[in-house]
Amino acid sequence: MPEISIVLIEPLYEGNVGFAARVMKNFGFTRLVLVNPCPIGDEAIMRASHARDVLDSARRMTIDEIYREFDLVVATTGEVSESVCTPMRMPYYAPAEVREMVADIEGTVAILFGRENWGLANREVMRADIICTIPASKAYPILNLSHAVGILCYELASLPRGTYPLAGRVEMEAFHQHLGEFLDRIDHPEFKRKNTTILLRRLFGRTRLTTREVSTLHGLMRRAEWHMEKKD
Amino acid sequence: MPEISIVLIEPLYEGNVGFAARVMKNFGFTRLVLVNPCPIGDEAIMRASHARDVLDSARRMTIDEIYREFDLVVATTGEVSESVCTPMRMPYYAPAEVREMVADIEGTVAILFGRENWGLANREVMRADIICTIPASKAYPILNLSHAVGILCYELASLPRGTYPLAGRVEMEAFHQHLGEFLDRIDHPEFKRKNTTILLRRLFGRTRLTTREVSTLHGLMRRAEWHMEKKD
Repeated sequence: MPEISIVLIEPLYEGNVGFAARVMKNFGFTRLVLVNPCPIGDEAIMRASHARDVLDSARRMTIDEIYREFDLVVATTGEVSESVCTPMRMPYYAPAEVREMVADIEGTVAILFGRENWGLANREVMRADIICTIPASKAYPILNLSHAVGILCYELASLPRGTYPLAGRVEMEAFHQHLGEFLDRIDHPEFKRKNTTILLRRLFGRTRLTTREVSTLHGLMRRAEWHMEKKD
Repeated sequence: MPEISIVLIEPLYEGNVGFAARVMKNFGFTRLVLVNPCPIGDEAIMRASHARDVLDSARRMTIDEIYREFDLVVATTGEVSESVCTPMRMPYYAPAEVREMVADIEGTVAILFGRENWGLANREVMRADIICTIPASKAYPILNLSHAVGILCYELASLPRGTYPLAGRVEMEAFHQHLGEFLDRIDHPEFKRKNTTILLRRLFGRTRLTTREVSTLHGLMRRAEWHMEKKD
């Protein structure tokens, strides 16, 4: 992945700048750039919460410096009306597409976000390499600035996925073996056996059991077996 | 897609409730449910902005009513520590996985979000059908409530993708034909021709040209041809 900076162009409300810093840090991004922002004070610090470091280390740059320094510039814009097909904001890509487009880049990428009231000016978009539009409802397509930043950061994040141990092939086969024995034990009729066996394979196949779950289910069957033993 | 409701359990700050309503509407969701919320006043209305309707139509329910009424309940939780592997918050799925899991459901789905300070209680998570965790940075994994709502809504939204006319096969073949003629016209050496032709196919293939772009490139070549004609 490239080195990604989030650039806020002339943000009007410091609360949004603070929230943007917070959601950046939530997804592992720390490089914030501010172009001619509103005064940044207590409200921004409060909204940034534990991302005060991101806020404090924000760089001040001009739009010209951004286009001079970054290898690739992505401009985020609102949905354009369908009839417009000028090169200015076309073609545009969804955040997930932009993720693919920048994934293999070695270099610096700036993601530009415009003002809360009227977004990015044409002169700011003009030199952008890629246009990104978050698909939104026509009923109300205007996202709050920090929510737009959050969605881009969420898509562009490269965080290790938390893992939990899924039961492996050997454990699953032993489990199905036990299920078969259990069916025998409860005198499950032979003529239904094949279909039921397949149904159980489908059911537990799509469920993708964890080791813990398999072990609990073994335990439940063993208990039932014990009680049936006792009764006989 | 199922009918999805966003459920905020005991939210503490009305600003977050307003922002949640706004970002829901941004992605086409209108069903907000509040469980024992803080007082909802002017601050919430201001943050909701043009999603006042979502805020005003929010239903008040109890957690028991939610588990009684909805066909499927998804509880969102923060990242759990790796050592914990109890069934309470395991296994968990990322928002994109939850999207796939609920995509084909005909029915009602509730997505639960916990309090700003300590999330969902075990007794609220206990009966949940699916656990969803937004992958976040270990440096600061706690998202603002409305940003978490925004990311779930973004993933679960089923909005028509905006479209623009990509050049079709016929236009692209005519374009490559013109490129070939242009190479002839500028006496491009025959022994390089094959590789250059392939390079141009790869280049414009991955670029996925729009009709507009193809037409502009034709125009540029025609102009160059005209100037070369004049000169000869």
